Amino acid sequence: MSQSKILLAEKEIPRQWYNIQADMSQLPPPPLHPGTKKPAVADDFAPLFPPALIEQEMTKERWIDIPDEVLAIYRLWRPSPLYRAHRLEKALGTPARIYYKYEGVSPAGSHKPNTAVPQAYYNKQAGVKRLSTETGAGQWGSALSLACGFFGLECTVYMVKISYRQKPYRRSLMEVWGAEVIPSPSDRTEAGRKVLAKHPDSPGSLGMAISEAVEDAVSREDTRYALGSVLNHVMLHQTIIGLEAKKQLDLVGDYPDVVIGCCGGGSNFSGLAFPFLADKFNGRKVRALAVEPAACPSLTKGTLAYDFGDTAGLTPLLRMYTLGHSFVPPGIHAGGLRYHGASPLISQLCHDGLVEGAAYPQQAVFASALLFARTEGILPAPESAHAIHGAVKEAEESAKTGKPQTILFSLSGHGHFDLAAYDAYFSGQLEDVGYSEEEGKRALAELPEV
Amino acid sequence: MSQSKILLAEKEIPRQWYNIQADMSQLPPPPLHPGTKKPAVADDFAPLFPPALIEQEMTKERWIDIPDEVLAIYRLWRPSPLYRAHRLEKALGTPARIYYKYEGVSPAGSHKPNTAVPQAYYNKQAGVKRLSTETGAGQWGSALSLACGFFGLECTVYMVKISYRQKPYRRSLMEVWGAEVIPSPSDRTEAGRKVLAKHPDSPGSLGMAISEAVEDAVSREDTRYALGSVLNHVMLHQTIIGLEAKKQLDLVGDYPDVVIGCCGGGSNFSGLAFPFLADKFNGRKVRALAVEPAACPSLTKGTLAYDFGDTAGLTPLLRMYTLGHSFVPPGIHAGGLRYHGASPLISQLCHDGLVEGAAYPQQAVFASALLFARTEGILPAPESAHAIHGAVKEAEESAKTGKPQTILFSLSGHGHFDLAAYDAYFSGQLEDVGYSEEEGKRALAELPEV
Repeated sequence: MSQSKILLAEKEIPRQWYNIQADMSQLPPPPLHPGTKKPAVADDFAPLFPPALIEQEMTKERWIDIPDEVLAIYRLWRPSPLYRAHRLEKALGTPARIYYKYEGVSPAGSHKPNTAVPQAYYNKQAGVKRLSTETGAGQWGSALSLACGFFGLECTVYMVKISYRQKPYRRSLMEVWGAEVIPSPSDRTEAGRKVLAKHPDSPGSLGMAISEAVEDAVSREDTRYALGSVLNHVMLHQTIIGLEAKKQLDLVGDYPDVVIGCCGGGSNFSGLAFPFLADKFNGRKVRALAVEPAACPSLTKGTLAYDFGDTAGLTPLLRMYTLGHSFVPPGIHAGGLRYHGASPLISQLCHDGLVEGAAYPQQAVFASALLFARTEGILPAPESAHAIHGAVKEAEESAKTGKPQTILFSLSGHGHFDLAAYDAYFSGQLEDVGYSEEEGKRALAELPEV
Repeated sequence: MSQSKILLAEKEIPRQWYNIQADMSQLPPPPLHPGTKKPAVADDFAPLFPPALIEQEMTKERWIDIPDEVLAIYRLWRPSPLYRAHRLEKALGTPARIYYKYEGVSPAGSHKPNTAVPQAYYNKQAGVKRLSTETGAGQWGSALSLACGFFGLECTVYMVKISYRQKPYRRSLMEVWGAEVIPSPSDRTEAGRKVLAKHPDSPGSLGMAISEAVEDAVSREDTRYALGSVLNHVMLHQTIIGLEAKKQLDLVGDYPDVVIGCCGGGSNFSGLAFPFLADKFNGRKVRALAVEPAACPSLTKGTLAYDFGDTAGLTPLLRMYTLGHSFVPPGIHAGGLRYHGASPLISQLCHDGLVEGAAYPQQAVFASALLFARTEGILPAPESAHAIHGAVKEAEESAKTGKPQTILFSLSGHGHFDLAAYDAYFSGQLEDVGYSEEEGKRALAELPEV
């Protein structure tokens, strides 16, 4: 049997991120100021982000150097392993070769630290003392806590109150790394107090937590805001995933016919796919498949339009496939994929036919997660299980047609903090929830006019 | 800065385990039959273990081939990484070089699969259909569940009832991998029914669960029993940890002055230390330090004597440092170190001055765990944190004397399932519990006569 685990030497860690904006023939139109509805300029972002990140958000340079200080931290878990899924292939009886890039080896257990670390670094460089952010299920909050700890920044995480109560261990993890975790809505912000006055028992929402984190950042000189997905600079930082994977496949002389990632805001999908799309721009044949939950299908059922990033309508307007900022996704277990929109870069690529979308219901996704855990051993996060299911479907297609193909997917994180979801699956309490066309129509009717 | 993560290529995985029995000038005296008190022979173990494992328990061969089928599974996470703890060194201001071998990369999150996989394999080879075992906190049970899944064996885990209730996610993890998990005491065995008749609300104990698992195995032709520590063949399988670590240190031209592991039954400590002790037998200078909890200090406060492996007195008698099989360790958070005895091999080496013991209270251990998490990023298991604390103490000594030394410790697992313990530490509810001399005297008075 050929090797299972394809490792890069530490000195082979890529020294630059890949900026897909350099190669796209059609770029997404610019973000708009939420008040004036005019194209936002760098200054509009200055209360939120340090100059280096604003620059990275807008630059068309193809390659961006990764600072040595960031590489020194990356080395704690990077290069991450690439696996050949021999045992899964055998179980599926497929002629396809399946590879997966495993990002669960980071201390936070997902790909999120790939961008949390440079974001903390550039803020530190700019003299920022403190970062604020929001978190739902906790993956992003824990990644930023970890990163801030490394650079001696204070970190305040507004955690959706219902998650704060239901997932105390995610909160503990953030505290282990030194962050302050505040259940949202809170009395710490005007936005929070307003909600509490009306609804003292509000369970909170991601949109509300974003509003609190943004208000916190803009109201304090020493504080900036950090976002874990959607924006261009976040996609940029994640490309280290795909850049490493290409080197690793080179080592075994293979190249994917299709790359697959789960897609919420899109940071994990971009991270894997963009470096391969770079080849596609140069004429190489490779498909890129973004897998989303049937309950929150922005790429496959959304509308390409300008919309707010949060439910309260405080953020700049981004042009993206969206279900409407007032769309409330059902409570599926893949909390990281419960976002109403998709990154403007991915949205544009999807619109231009360079990226395919697919949406799957969660029962089928969990069945594939279990097959994966029992063959490859690793317990996948429910989000990552969407990519697994996409890969399983492709491999089954190969088995049917007898046509071999090379499949590469991103296993973006482990499921060690998600066992409640597996419990629900075993006990039959995990139901398929689809996209409600009616609720969708209502939310899309509330898109802002631009 | 020199590299942080020292990786071996997959083809560098050791092909043989190291059997320290080949090199010890003084071997531990043989196990005794619990009834006759005469040296146990292979046949006495036949109802419990397959022939290959009984052979490995007794052989004096120095090198034992690792079967290809086991290597194929090992490759899913092995070779495990060796880290240079640059950031921890800096935080301690020490001239010491600190390395750690990280076994938390296995799917079960600890070193336990290193022996669970070969145990499942040899049972499968012998035609066994089903394995029974016990688990307390769940690390061993989840490792064996994973291993049985790989080889298509049924797996029944008797889980201490109080843990079954308090740690539902450990149970879920075992079920993900296909095991049947039974809260112990249960009505499935005579031993369980006896307890339930007297104490219907019994929270269970590890000793009771062992009795149930053993009874289950001996009462069914198709079933054998599996143990996760203490026995010679378990120590043998774990030596892959130290064998890899030696190769990895070779790559950077270093060699430890001291190797450190936490020690409950002793499988993790042996795994790291035995391959280095092989050099010590040949005159090389290297210290081996086994760290145990102050609350359960078998090596440092126990008596070297024949004792039972379980509280009910059903197992063969093993000569080991023991606190007495009726000793009930306080409810510290390092559940994997709550065992009354230590492996006969380690006990002998300790008695002969080749291994040092040290016992630390849990508050100091958690303080070191937190320092580690905040510098190196990885959240350690409470058990592994004992080794961290041992390494920190050594590094602080170097800082004091100004004398550099090379420290290697085993980070045997991650703490993703142990956040309740960190919560307790943060909230000040984690208390130092020492060894009760009085309780110790009582338990030692109950040692069996031989």
